[in-house]
Amino acid sequence: MNEFELIDLVLSTLGDTASGDPLVLGPGDDSAAVLVPAGSLLVSSIDSLLADVHFPADAPAALIGYRSLMVSLSDLAAMGAEASHVLVSLTLNTVDAAWVRQFALGMREAALSTGVKIAGGNISRGPLAIHVSVHGFCPPADLLRRDTAQVGDQVFVTGALGGAAAAVAEGFAAVKDVDPDAVTPLQQRYFKPQARLSAGKTLRGTAHAAIDVSDGLLQDLGHLMKASDLQARIDSSLVPVFPGADLAQALHGGDDYELLFTAAAMPAQLGVAVSRIGELVSGSGILVDGKQVTADGYRHF
Amino acid sequence: MNEFELIDLVLSTLGDTASGDPLVLGPGDDSAAVLVPAGSLLVSSIDSLLADVHFPADAPAALIGYRSLMVSLSDLAAMGAEASHVLVSLTLNTVDAAWVRQFALGMREAALSTGVKIAGGNISRGPLAIHVSVHGFCPPADLLRRDTAQVGDQVFVTGALGGAAAAVAEGFAAVKDVDPDAVTPLQQRYFKPQARLSAGKTLRGTAHAAIDVSDGLLQDLGHLMKASDLQARIDSSLVPVFPGADLAQALHGGDDYELLFTAAAMPAQLGVAVSRIGELVSGSGILVDGKQVTADGYRHF
Repeated sequence: MNEFELIDLVLSTLGDTASGDPLVLGPGDDSAAVLVPAGSLLVSSIDSLLADVHFPADAPAALIGYRSLMVSLSDLAAMGAEASHVLVSLTLNTVDAAWVRQFALGMREAALSTGVKIAGGNISRGPLAIHVSVHGFCPPADLLRRDTAQVGDQVFVTGALGGAAAAVAEGFAAVKDVDPDAVTPLQQRYFKPQARLSAGKTLRGTAHAAIDVSDGLLQDLGHLMKASDLQARIDSSLVPVFPGADLAQALHGGDDYELLFTAAAMPAQLGVAVSRIGELVSGSGILVDGKQVTADGYRHF
Repeated sequence: MNEFELIDLVLSTLGDTASGDPLVLGPGDDSAAVLVPAGSLLVSSIDSLLADVHFPADAPAALIGYRSLMVSLSDLAAMGAEASHVLVSLTLNTVDAAWVRQFALGMREAALSTGVKIAGGNISRGPLAIHVSVHGFCPPADLLRRDTAQVGDQVFVTGALGGAAAAVAEGFAAVKDVDPDAVTPLQQRYFKPQARLSAGKTLRGTAHAAIDVSDGLLQDLGHLMKASDLQARIDSSLVPVFPGADLAQALHGGDDYELLFTAAAMPAQLGVAVSRIGELVSGSGILVDGKQVTADGYRHF
């Protein structure tokens, strides 16, 4: 099976998630072409997920495919953007048609549940990795940025944290033995994160600043505070801890893909639980329970 | 040096190629935000360049950076799109600040010469590879597709072919010993391809179909014929061979990044040499000098 046959297999598996509005031209040409709504900005991000760094290489392919798309889409949720389409570059060491089909099925499931289209991609031979470029639309005035938090804002987070970290606490070996048809709640947190796209859109005009929790609550909050030049004061007893995880995992663990945002007051219904965990004052850095902390989380180097 | 310090180094090196119109929000947030011209389609593609597959790992970093951007932009040229911005995901085994700075300088040079902005990116630890998502704009009616060639069209190609293949004919080892300040003409063809963006734009409304020559003339022509359901008849004596290359390299060698297009007649001035190499008839596949050929070129699997 050569690369063109592999691409045909992927496209037939993706089916209608690789065609239709807003794609004017989907996979198969040199580039895809997409209709952008008038008055919207294009919102774009790129993410790389490497085997045994960002996911266990021998996890079920469908879960790898699902997670790759969701993790990448989370960056659009953090901007308040409406997700529209993605481009996927897959590198594979060996050609395993069954693996590729399961991977594409996982991507398809994530695409169907978020309404995004898979506009194009690329397959080449190399160490297993998935590179996803995600795109969406947002009116200019509604963009949720990192650098626009305000003194006096409350700090909020969606969902509960630490579940993904608890799942990987014993190393990737602990999550690779997963039955795709019987994923435990902690495995679910790792393999099936939900990009908070709907919550992000609802926060347009309400949140002053936002980021997604990918590297860990404190590290991502640190990015927000650095960009906005403010200090966050967090009450650890208010941090929502996922059942089965502990507070340290909720504060430092990555891979949760919840939304961390600041606003003047508790927002209206977001379709997901929201916790107020602290507030913003003049200054810099983060205090947890009154003590200055280092904003640490996952670092690549 | 951690990933955030590396990103700061890249951004300070990129300078004004990572800010300004059409970026409303450049690198540093969860996503970039870009202004799309009214009435234009968004044209997008993604490419992966892996060390020792797509380029020699120990080639000068500035040339790797330059080439990565140009190779990826070539997919926009083949659509007739105006290139606007790119997202870059870089994976690195080791942190070498001098390497990263040279790589960014190479990207900057390619960005300056094409007018594209580097809107965002990502750095993670892994085998050396560059993943580039490229974006541009094109009025809907002007898109140069693969599936719209017409019976009776002439077949044209820009520039001359085979030079990059000649450069790598002795293996990547032959191109890695390159002095960035004294690149030979053949090394230039490999490391400094020119995305034919201006020619692609000029071909709007004139070319009936187009593709870029990345995998080899015959293989890429084969894609065009398959998409358009036509047969190409090529006269090998008309194929422009780069000085120092031979006809086989011009027909089968990849990495040239010239534009291959079909049109009713020789187009007006494109700012680059254009050769007529054959014509299209009903049927399928490719005849070279009257003989049916297999459309072979580089294959990943």
